[in-house]
Amino acid sequence: MYSFKNDYSEGAHPRILNKIVETNLIQQPGYGEDEYSAQAKEVLRKKISNTEAVIYFLSGGTQTNLIVIASLLRPHEAVISAKTGHIYANETGSIEATGHRVITIETADGRLTPVAIAEVLKEYSLRPHVVKPKMVYISNSTEIGTVYRKSELRELFEFCQSQDLYLFLDGARLGNALTAQDNDLTLPDVSAYTDIFYIGGTKNGALLGEAVVFNKAFWAEDFDYILKQRGALLAKGRLLGIQFLELFKDDLYFQLAKHANSMAMKVADAIKTEGYSFLTRPVSNQIFPILPQELIDRLSRKYDFYIWQPVDAKQSAIRLITSWATDEEQVDRFIDDLKQR
Amino acid sequence: MYSFKNDYSEGAHPRILNKIVETNLIQQPGYGEDEYSAQAKEVLRKKISNTEAVIYFLSGGTQTNLIVIASLLRPHEAVISAKTGHIYANETGSIEATGHRVITIETADGRLTPVAIAEVLKEYSLRPHVVKPKMVYISNSTEIGTVYRKSELRELFEFCQSQDLYLFLDGARLGNALTAQDNDLTLPDVSAYTDIFYIGGTKNGALLGEAVVFNKAFWAEDFDYILKQRGALLAKGRLLGIQFLELFKDDLYFQLAKHANSMAMKVADAIKTEGYSFLTRPVSNQIFPILPQELIDRLSRKYDFYIWQPVDAKQSAIRLITSWATDEEQVDRFIDDLKQR
Amino acid sequence: MYSFKNDYSEGAHPRILNKIVETNLIQQPGYGEDEYSAQAKEVLRKKISNTEAVIYFLSGGTQTNLIVIASLLRPHEAVISAKTGHIYANETGSIEATGHRVITIETADGRLTPVAIAEVLKEYSLRPHVVKPKMVYISNSTEIGTVYRKSELRELFEFCQSQDLYLFLDGARLGNALTAQDNDLTLPDVSAYTDIFYIGGTKNGALLGEAVVFNKAFWAEDFDYILKQRGALLAKGRLLGIQFLELFKDDLYFQLAKHANSMAMKVADAIKTEGYSFLTRPVSNQIFPILPQELIDRLSRKYDFYIWQPVDAKQSAIRLITSWATDEEQVDRFIDDLKQR
Amino acid sequence: MYSFKNDYSEGAHPRILNKIVETNLIQQPGYGEDEYSAQAKEVLRKKISNTEAVIYFLSGGTQTNLIVIASLLRPHEAVISAKTGHIYANETGSIEATGHRVITIETADGRLTPVAIAEVLKEYSLRPHVVKPKMVYISNSTEIGTVYRKSELRELFEFCQSQDLYLFLDGARLGNALTAQDNDLTLPDVSAYTDIFYIGGTKNGALLGEAVVFNKAFWAEDFDYILKQRGALLAKGRLLGIQFLELFKDDLYFQLAKHANSMAMKVADAIKTEGYSFLTRPVSNQIFPILPQELIDRLSRKYDFYIWQPVDAKQSAIRLITSWATDEEQVDRFIDDLKQR
Repeated sequence: MYSFKNDYSEGAHPRILNKIVETNLIQQPGYGEDEYSAQAKEVLRKKISNTEAVIYFLSGGTQTNLIVIASLLRPHEAVISAKTGHIYANETGSIEATGHRVITIETADGRLTPVAIAEVLKEYSLRPHVVKPKMVYISNSTEIGTVYRKSELRELFEFCQSQDLYLFLDGARLGNALTAQDNDLTLPDVSAYTDIFYIGGTKNGALLGEAVVFNKAFWAEDFDYILKQRGALLAKGRLLGIQFLELFKDDLYFQLAKHANSMAMKVADAIKTEGYSFLTRPVSNQIFPILPQELIDRLSRKYDFYIWQPVDAKQSAIRLITSWATDEEQVDRFIDDLKQR
Repeated sequence: MYSFKNDYSEGAHPRILNKIVETNLIQQPGYGEDEYSAQAKEVLRKKISNTEAVIYFLSGGTQTNLIVIASLLRPHEAVISAKTGHIYANETGSIEATGHRVITIETADGRLTPVAIAEVLKEYSLRPHVVKPKMVYISNSTEIGTVYRKSELRELFEFCQSQDLYLFLDGARLGNALTAQDNDLTLPDVSAYTDIFYIGGTKNGALLGEAVVFNKAFWAEDFDYILKQRGALLAKGRLLGIQFLELFKDDLYFQLAKHANSMAMKVADAIKTEGYSFLTRPVSNQIFPILPQELIDRLSRKYDFYIWQPVDAKQSAIRLITSWATDEEQVDRFIDDLKQR
Repeated sequence: MYSFKNDYSEGAHPRILNKIVETNLIQQPGYGEDEYSAQAKEVLRKKISNTEAVIYFLSGGTQTNLIVIASLLRPHEAVISAKTGHIYANETGSIEATGHRVITIETADGRLTPVAIAEVLKEYSLRPHVVKPKMVYISNSTEIGTVYRKSELRELFEFCQSQDLYLFLDGARLGNALTAQDNDLTLPDVSAYTDIFYIGGTKNGALLGEAVVFNKAFWAEDFDYILKQRGALLAKGRLLGIQFLELFKDDLYFQLAKHANSMAMKVADAIKTEGYSFLTRPVSNQIFPILPQELIDRLSRKYDFYIWQPVDAKQSAIRLITSWATDEEQVDRFIDDLKQR
Repeated sequence: MYSFKNDYSEGAHPRILNKIVETNLIQQPGYGEDEYSAQAKEVLRKKISNTEAVIYFLSGGTQTNLIVIASLLRPHEAVISAKTGHIYANETGSIEATGHRVITIETADGRLTPVAIAEVLKEYSLRPHVVKPKMVYISNSTEIGTVYRKSELRELFEFCQSQDLYLFLDGARLGNALTAQDNDLTLPDVSAYTDIFYIGGTKNGALLGEAVVFNKAFWAEDFDYILKQRGALLAKGRLLGIQFLELFKDDLYFQLAKHANSMAMKVADAIKTEGYSFLTRPVSNQIFPILPQELIDRLSRKYDFYIWQPVDAKQSAIRLITSWATDEEQVDRFIDDLKQR
């Protein structure tokens, strides 16, 4: 069995492990005060072209989402998300557990638009009987593999600014987004057109780790306290710093994401050639082909993946995810198996 | 500068890193469903002689404390702790942030007794105008280096049972406690005389990781949901499983703790020989010698440690902590420096 | 201007005020320990034919909803509600503020069915990445004036029991429901076919006050603590006890509700006669006629009411609410104004 | 049995009830938008000489404390209180339930000083491992009957300003404080030397009601949302407005408080004459005489009061509270009974 179930089935990129081994016995201060974390933050500030940015390293996506949101919202404020958004669909009510409603928007492709958000603002106007929308949460790439174009992100950001809404971008798969087929965004763009975002490590070659970027220092005020209070401040913070330092020493981060994307595109091309369609247009490392049930059954015997949703009586969309570590031989084998009718 | 500031200044024991490297590219299910975690839990259940126990792996102490407590208490219930307890003194109000009061008890040595707890129960009796004490939190070893004797833990547990209180033991330094000079407790004893406890990895050779043990399966009901909701469920849970598997494959866990303790005892003996006293009796890897200010100043130039508290105008207690990785040569050098007047 | 905007525009029924004045200087214990509260609970237990029930008096609907829900759910558990449900639509995210998601269901008429709930259960099955539905919240009458039939409530309750879900009924307008045109439910039925419900006083003749009924004593365990903790335990609890005692001394509660309903029905009949339709079938004291914009404008000059929602370019549904205190002369005047074209 | 147990044993002052009856059937908007509330706020702004103040009416002290505190503090911020403070001693952990630690200070007389607060700030300095003290909570009169002098309150306020701490004054018994024997404070002083305070109605002649005053409008931003979210916004807000309007139409509020104080002073004088001492100097309507056990037993047969705390084997302090409604004949009878040996 080979798994296309997610992009965290393997450990870390070998260069990262080497670096962890190499620095292992050098004493460092705890709680993120180590030199690797300091260096990694410096490197990241350069990569995003934002010297004012305040950066923290956290362990995972759910943790990052809930802590960022809890640190910024007052009790009566809410966050707007696509219904497919990770904070609504996959995080066990973690945002509500911090006291805030997630207001959801039905979307075709997992992406939000100013028009859709304006509808929510209209609906939530009967003060004080309704919550106050104060943040927009988006993912790039989204949970269904789509990405934002530069013009779309900029419009969204400008709209949010005009409405006094924070724009928070979940970048658990930011590497895959910025190397996706349709992409025209860069790291500096993402920093310029969001208030807060994060650069996902866990799903792109790290053992664990997400780098949260507050584009203005003001929004990070006292974030250190909240990080500690929520149990997210690792004693050996060096573990996070080392990994981001290595991922961004050169372009390793983007190389890994490109590999994942190209493996997914290879599968997608084969699927298209076989005449099947997709739930959303395949552009990054998550693809959602619609396949006949018998083919799904056959592939399931050799490969692990999610059945995403039934499409009709005879077909379902499945989700295939590739990673920085996906073996091209296995991809080829999958394509062969796909072709055999 | 050599640091005696804490026991998380270095990375992980080399055997752990080797195992991480060795298993790196083997695909595994995410979120703690990997085979290493399953094996590690099996091993731990044997080590604690409790086949019914339910075990989860978390990333750090604050996270573990807050999630365990939040999962067990109803909104009006409170936890009792020594005033020096980590949940009160060092975790940024993380328990209160989950909605629960930490009721504190002043102690001489960081340890709780049935008598002291009975006082609290008496004080908190004017229902419904006061919170309802429902859990007792203790640390072993404590935050000031002391440990519980078997008879003490048993009495505390029996008292808690008689009062319908959970007994929760923070074992961030359980290895150091169970190999301390005064200790007569074993892992099976700890499982027998607590309701919930955890076995700390972060401070004893792991990169990160705490193993929470629910001694009765009932108390762990739905803990998986709460773990995820609080952002504590690592996508690559294998990282935690592998480490505990390696630490408990043989007696590595206890060997590491013994090394830390013996380094501290070596320093403590030298300090005694020099005629100084201690804030609490040194028995584990945290010692609190009371030294003259000028000696502290001199040592500070070459060694990193906390000034714990002033004792009088001319002396302060300092805290020295050794770890699994403490270099004996540095210990000897410290002792030499101590002796030079 | 006469108001049909809501059913809390006036004070309390004169008999209630008389009783408050009459008992004013009799000393009573505080915090709900007064004799009037005790008597009122006794009377209510008889009226609902449930001697085991545990009853508490609270001040208002939002307060009652959030405290009941917070007292019963564990952190990862969620409540299911119609999207029009008061806890979702009108209470400023109060349930999420206690940490719990409100899972909403789109409905035609504000009522929930086993089929719709079963869909939610199916959708929320990917443990532990989603919240655990644990309670169903319904209102009777609903926020859009509809009511549950006995068979419907019984089926819902049986379904909830089979799925281990609490059934909680918001009875802010229970009087209006139980005297509505379609109703075949009685107070004992409501007690028999729910787990927890409340009998609304604020919207039916009291100054303030809701009587929460836990149909099994077990569910009320420690509710007194939570009531106090949430700031809902009135020092002069007598104020609530006296009012419910007076409302249920005889059938005053139902007489008041009947008056409100009959006033609404009188208006509804006139509207029907004029040839207009309704958003939902008018059966209780909230009616939602669909009227042409010019008529709405005209009526707005003399009467206060909510514009509920636009129906098309030329018509909107408005909401008219009558109360125990609605003046029949004003109703007649409204009808006259309606008829004048 | 006559009760000296608290100051909420009776209903409301007759003038208040008359006003409620008189206005009963006049239709008013709900949720605090009624004209009585508007007028009462206007009157209060004049009485406190602060036209900028934003005022809200709530139902009780615990509710007011928790909502004000929750609305102002960020998640990692804490409130400092005397250990006897109502928020710590009598409110079932309501502040912790909103996520915030109450840091307590042991005091001799229930009052806080800059020196004591400075100690706390020093203790809570190891950022980010400790909470951040951000508010000081005081009560006037305190829970043990003492009051603040003008110079003391001013110094405290200036200290809080210098340390960026909010000063929040719980005025559940503000009437009694401002008419106490030692008092030199006025309502305008209280507004000038605090950030937020409230004027208690429940314990001084109202059925229920506390008027929260935000001395600067900025601090009240979005308070309406939070009020609603916490279930504190009464549908019939008129009930609160009418009462404060009546209490402050002339000096009724202070007359009622004076009566309560003078009744307590009469008892205190008699107790002094008999040669007994007090736990705290009696100046307001709560007095704490230290009496021999046999006298306590004897008085207990005819009067209801709290045994506050044992003082030695033969004596205890009791708490006697008088109210606006305390009957002077009963006071005289109590004094007679006290004198009979």
